[in-house]
Formats: sequence, C-alpha cells, structure tokens
Amino acid sequence: MTLQARPLRLSTADAGFEAAFQARLHWSADTDAQVEQAVTDILAAVRARGDAAVLEFTGRFDGLPADAMQALELAPAELKAAFDGLPAAQRQALEAAAARVRSYHEAQKRASGESWTYRDADGTLLGQKVTPLDRVGIYVPGGKAAYPSSVLMNAIPAHVAGVGEIIMVVPTPRGERNPLVLAAAHVAGVTRAFTIGGAQAIAALAYGTATVPRVDKITGPGNAYVASAKRRVFGQVGIDMIAGPSEILVLADGSTPADWVAMDLFSQAEHDELAQSILLCPDAGYIAQVQQAIDRLLPELPRAAIVAASLNGRGALIQTRSMDEACAISNRIAPEHLEIASAEPHRWEPLLRHAGAIFLGGYTSESLGDYCAGPNHVLPTSSTARFSSPLGVYDFQKRSSLIEVSEQGAQSLGRIASVLAHGEGLQAHARAAEMRIKP
Amino acid sequence: MTLQARPLRLSTADAGFEAAFQARLHWSADTDAQVEQAVTDILAAVRARGDAAVLEFTGRFDGLPADAMQALELAPAELKAAFDGLPAAQRQALEAAAARVRSYHEAQKRASGESWTYRDADGTLLGQKVTPLDRVGIYVPGGKAAYPSSVLMNAIPAHVAGVGEIIMVVPTPRGERNPLVLAAAHVAGVTRAFTIGGAQAIAALAYGTATVPRVDKITGPGNAYVASAKRRVFGQVGIDMIAGPSEILVLADGSTPADWVAMDLFSQAEHDELAQSILLCPDAGYIAQVQQAIDRLLPELPRAAIVAASLNGRGALIQTRSMDEACAISNRIAPEHLEIASAEPHRWEPLLRHAGAIFLGGYTSESLGDYCAGPNHVLPTSSTARFSSPLGVYDFQKRSSLIEVSEQGAQSLGRIASVLAHGEGLQAHARAAEMRIKP
Repeated sequence: MTLQARPLRLSTADAGFEAAFQARLHWSADTDAQVEQAVTDILAAVRARGDAAVLEFTGRFDGLPADAMQALELAPAELKAAFDGLPAAQRQALEAAAARVRSYHEAQKRASGESWTYRDADGTLLGQKVTPLDRVGIYVPGGKAAYPSSVLMNAIPAHVAGVGEIIMVVPTPRGERNPLVLAAAHVAGVTRAFTIGGAQAIAALAYGTATVPRVDKITGPGNAYVASAKRRVFGQVGIDMIAGPSEILVLADGSTPADWVAMDLFSQAEHDELAQSILLCPDAGYIAQVQQAIDRLLPELPRAAIVAASLNGRGALIQTRSMDEACAISNRIAPEHLEIASAEPHRWEPLLRHAGAIFLGGYTSESLGDYCAGPNHVLPTSSTARFSSPLGVYDFQKRSSLIEVSEQGAQSLGRIASVLAHGEGLQAHARAAEMRIKP
Repeated sequence: MTLQARPLRLSTADAGFEAAFQARLHWSADTDAQVEQAVTDILAAVRARGDAAVLEFTGRFDGLPADAMQALELAPAELKAAFDGLPAAQRQALEAAAARVRSYHEAQKRASGESWTYRDADGTLLGQKVTPLDRVGIYVPGGKAAYPSSVLMNAIPAHVAGVGEIIMVVPTPRGERNPLVLAAAHVAGVTRAFTIGGAQAIAALAYGTATVPRVDKITGPGNAYVASAKRRVFGQVGIDMIAGPSEILVLADGSTPADWVAMDLFSQAEHDELAQSILLCPDAGYIAQVQQAIDRLLPELPRAAIVAASLNGRGALIQTRSMDEACAISNRIAPEHLEIASAEPHRWEPLLRHAGAIFLGGYTSESLGDYCAGPNHVLPTSSTARFSSPLGVYDFQKRSSLIEVSEQGAQSLGRIASVLAHGEGLQAHARAAEMRIKP
C-alpha cells in the first residue's frame, strides 16, 4: 500500500470551518495517574537516599548498573574525545552553529539583560541589578530523540548569561552514548555531565546528592516522567516551559516554491505523530500545488511513515479569504514556528502578535532556525506563545530591585507610605516610614 | 502577661550555628489533599458550566447570592465613585504612589523591554519582537489581607507593558467591598472588575465564561485555594510566582538607629505569624540595642500579638564575624527584602547576589519600597530569588524571535544545517535547508 499524506483541507468560507478548525487544533496534555505516582515515589526516594537511589533507578530503568556515581560522570576529557572523534564536517558544523548561537545571545544580553539605575530629582536611586544564576541543570534526552542541537540551545544562553556551573544530565540506556551529544556538550562549555536521566535525574538536580550538585534552575525537554518531575520540583528550583508537540504554521502568498513549503511542513511532521503542520493561504491553486509536492516528495523521506501519520492526523491546508485573514487566524493559533512564505514578509509581520519564532521570506526555512541561524530553538508550544517566550539569556538571569532613598526623598515618600500603610491597617509599616521623617 | 518578642539569638562563631540556622530557615509549602480535591472539583465545574458554577460557588463560599453575573461586575463608575469618596489624603497618596510606580516601570520597559534587530554581514536579519499580552487577570484578595497597594503593583506594570485588557477579580465576602481597593483599581486603570474570588475566579479567568473573558496570564496573591488553582491552570494560561511567607533580612553595621531597624523587622513580622525577620550584624552591642528597641516599641503596635508570634517563632538576630560574612549568609538565604542598614551600602551591594529587592542605606525602609518608591513589591520569596525576579513589565510581555535569512545567508547556513540535521536523523530538516542552496 502506498503511503499517503493528506492534511485536512479547510476553507474559512465553509459553514463548518470553525468547528473543524477547533477540532484539528485540539490537543490535551492530560496527565497519567500511573506516571504521576511513579514520579512521586522517585522524587521521594532521591530526596531521602540521594546517590544510592539514583544508582538504583539508573540500573533499573536505563539498564546501566554502576557501583558508584563516579561511574556515571563523564569527564571533560571524554567530552573532548567525542568531539575529536567526529568527522571534520560535523566538528565544523557544530562549531559554526555554536558561534552563531553565541553571537545572537550576546546581542540579546546587550539588548535586554543589563543592569540599569537612575536617580530621581530628590537624589533617590532606583533600578535593577541583573545577575546570572549560580548553577543550572540541563536535561538532554537520550535514545531516539537525542538532539545535540538542543545541548547548544540550552547551554549557550546559560553560558552567555554568566552562569557559574552548567550541569548536564543525559541518560545512556544500556550504556549507549551519542557522540554528537557529548561533542556538543564540549563545544557548549558544559561544566559537569552525568549519564543519568528520567525523574531521578531531575530529583538529583533539584535536591542535590553527595555527587550531583543542587542547581537553581532546570531546563530542557524530556518524556512524560521528566515533564511531571519538573512540574513537581518547580518552586524548589526554577524550570523552563513544559513543551507540548512541536508545531509549524506557514503563511503563504504563493510566491515561495511549493516544494520548499511542502518540505517545511514535513520537517515539523517528521518529529513525531503528534507534531502539527498547518498551511494558511488565500490561493486555492497554490494549496493544490503544495498537496502535489507532498505527494511527490513524501516517498523520498526515510521518516515518511511518521510524516504521513502526523499530516493525516493533525495537519491542515487552510484556504483563507485573504492574507489579512490568514494573519488573524495565525494569532488565534499562536504557533511555535511561524513562516511568512511571502514576497512581502515585512508587510505581514507587524500583524502577527503571537508566535515563538517568526521566519520571514522564502529563504528562511524553519530548519535553518532549528540549527544555526542564531536564535533559540526552544520555543513556546501549544498556544503558550500568547504569554511566553523563546528560551533566552533572560531565563538564566534574575533581577533584584535597587532602591536607595535619599534623606530628602524619605520625607516625601514617608508621608505617602504612612497614609497608605494606615489605610491597610499595617501600623508598623507606617511607623517605619514616619521614623525617617525629620520633625 | 506582658507580650514579649525574642527573636532567636545566634552567632556564627557558635558550634551549633549551622543546625540552628537551618532549622530557623526551614519552611515547607506542603499541599493539603483536601484543598487539592476541592480545587479539582471547582475547576472542572467552572470549565463545564461557566457562569452558573461561578455564581453557585460565590453564593456558597462568599455568602454573596446573585442571580446573574451582571450583579457581580463592578462598573467603572463604581470604581471612580469609590475613589471620589476617599479622604483627600488617601486620594493624593494613591495617585502619588501610582505615578512613581508608573514612572519606574516605564524606565524598566525602556531598559529591557523593547524590540531589537540587527543584520549579519550576509544580510540576514536577526532579533526579537517584544509585544504585550492581549489580556491579563489580576487576583486581589478580599477580607483581612486586602491591599490596595497590590492592585497598583499588579495592574500598573501590565498597563505600562501595553496590555489591552486588565481584568480584576476581588472577592467581597457577604458583599463587603474595600473602598481603597476599588479606588486603586480606578487609579491603576483596570478594564473590568468582578467581585468573585477563590479557585472559581481563577477558573473563570483561565477558561473564560460567557461573562468573564478568558485571559492569557493571571497574577496576584491569594490563599491556599487560589495558589493551588493557579498551579493547576499553568500552561493553559501564564501565572506569576506562587508566594510563600514574606521575609526581611537586615544587614547592619551599627550606623542606623536601632529603633529604625527594630521597626523594619516589625513591619515584616506584622504581616502574619509565618513572616520571617532576620538581622545580621557583626556588632553584639548593636544587636542588644535592637533587642532593647524591640522590647520598648512592641507594646505600641496594634498588631503586637502577630509581631511577637512571628519574631518568636521565625525571627533571628545573628551575630556574624564580619560584614563580609553577613553578605555571604545573606546569599545563602536569598531573601525577598534585603536592607543594607550601613553607612557604606555601595560597599556591600556588589557582594549581594540573590535578593528580590535591595534597600540601600538607613533611610530606605522596606515600607517605602512596599508603597511608593517605584519598584514592584511583588517579589520572590522562600529563596526563589536564586532564580526569579520581581514582578515587572517583562511579566506582561512576550518575545518572538525574528529571522530573515538572505539568499546569500541560506547558502552557508544551509550547509551547516544539513550536516547537523543528518547527524540527528532528521532528513526532512536537511532537505528543507538543501533546497534553498543554489546548485
């Protein structure tokens, strides 16, 4: 039987559009009670027994027996050896990607991550001090979804922020190490690395053990156990977002070759069956060309079965009345990746309010952004771009307000604070302000 | 019986210091299974039945029966009337505080909240677009802890960020409205306000009902039910931090009047019995003076019983070997509020790495910052200043990466992306990059 990929065909002019559109977008991050219970037990065990529990779970779940945590630490020399052992093309590509990602995040730090202060007319100093986190943990999945690019995208912003120690954890089931992941850790400047994973690795980072240092924040993607563990330790440590399935939305005016757009839809769909690829376009003829390109190009893909399952189950080709309407629908979706495959990308970009990353013009394939354009590929999914942002230097910094009230300032501010504090029934607050007022 | 407040006396030179210090800091945010179950039920009911469920819970929990949601909305004219009805001193204090808070947050937006772009040598454009959230919800507690200053501190940064609609919810048990809270909503420019609270208000904001619009993020403090509900809806909407008990740490070199420092410790302790006030000082004589001031000033406080309970249960006066050691201990605590009661505050400030807000010099009482200095009084508690920041304009903005790869840029970037994508086994990613390379 021939593999076919037929994304749902919709038109905003159809009567049933709204219901069909909503149904296709629907995705629910329901939690699994069995996973939740297992994670509860694992977190408690690591909190109580530290290294011993981590060793036990690593033996049981990863098939990686070890007598001591030392056997589960990767020395810097091992990371470097992995890098040195790569083909030259991979070494160069990793270094080139790392240099671009570093350069972009340095610009980000200059633009929005520096301390600032100013003085009022009365001499009162106000501002914010921006400082890096002391120590962060980076979770890197092992097995089939082991992505060296994710190591760069998590570790480099931390490094640029000035984080003192970057602790990487990566499970190596049955001892299988991914040389590209280890090499990326070398290139990105990871401080220490442990071959542990799952909820036990999250627990070790959040609580600390005799061997694994306690961190201040944990970032990086993982399976359902990792996601659940991250949610649980939030508050004890900071976490980044909890990612849902990956998504791409392409806005097309018909000016980009249909083959390119088809391949961009594939490149999202090949991640997994739940990934979502959507095309919005006012031109029915172009939509038909994209479907033809899908039919023609699909068979050449090694991951064609996953691509077809994703496009058939969650993909959509949507004809809109206009590019303006396409932009409005895009804002309702708030996609993770948003390509403006248009000859006039700067005409539409200002209309697009919610997206993790916006790729302007036909030459900007999402995959260039995934690997090496410079911006981060860790982006908000599942419509959370309505309120959250790409992973960035700011995720590895925190701010402290600075206030230095002058003697003169204490006179006027003291009177205001006194009135409001009495209004709230907080008399010690009022008295503290009043004491600084000269009689 | 005379009320006494005797914070724990410790010295870093004592053998038992470390254990006593750890024990005093310990605070656990354990969740209550009964609260969790009630919140689960309330969220599900509001999600399924909307307004009807909100009306039912408001009648049951707040003793505020109503036939329709319209009865639970506060019209803008009612907010204005509350403001107009205040004594002139309160009106002026609210407006003065709001003006200073607005001015500070405008500076914050200029310093770290603007969009930026740059172009590479090959013409590739990179940057980030910073946009406000469309609609946010602000939770304001009712009853005994109804703080109008919190309305300003939550709504004004949202307003400065450019948020389109600010929806306030505030429970009014048995119909009791706090005029200062309503007046603050008027001053801060709240768009709509509802007299609903608890988990049902959080659910209404997160899911939307026929009457209450769905928001993108919810900020503001609340009781255990509100905190639990916020945790549960996180992902559906953004949330701010989940706050623990309030804390102050005073670093003193002996140059600030002991009475002032005692009153600053009181002003934190008067919030509730779990609030924590700690003094770090190398001078035993000065610590004794602060204890004497505590003894002398306590009886004059209306909330003396709460202050005494807080100081006796969680307070500490700690003698350090030096100011340097005091700074090091402060970094271990990562306090919400950190006063440097020193003649040389700028000598010590660079040593202080973790704090929500730093108050420099003897004139800068925490209470000035709580009400009107300008910076936000919503700050990270329970040591989360290690990884999180004061509420700010940035909490009401999100960022979208911008990438526009030039034709020339697609040639070099395409080759890098192709190598890395093949290395990860993602061939569609590789093909999408390769297609843009000129033969």
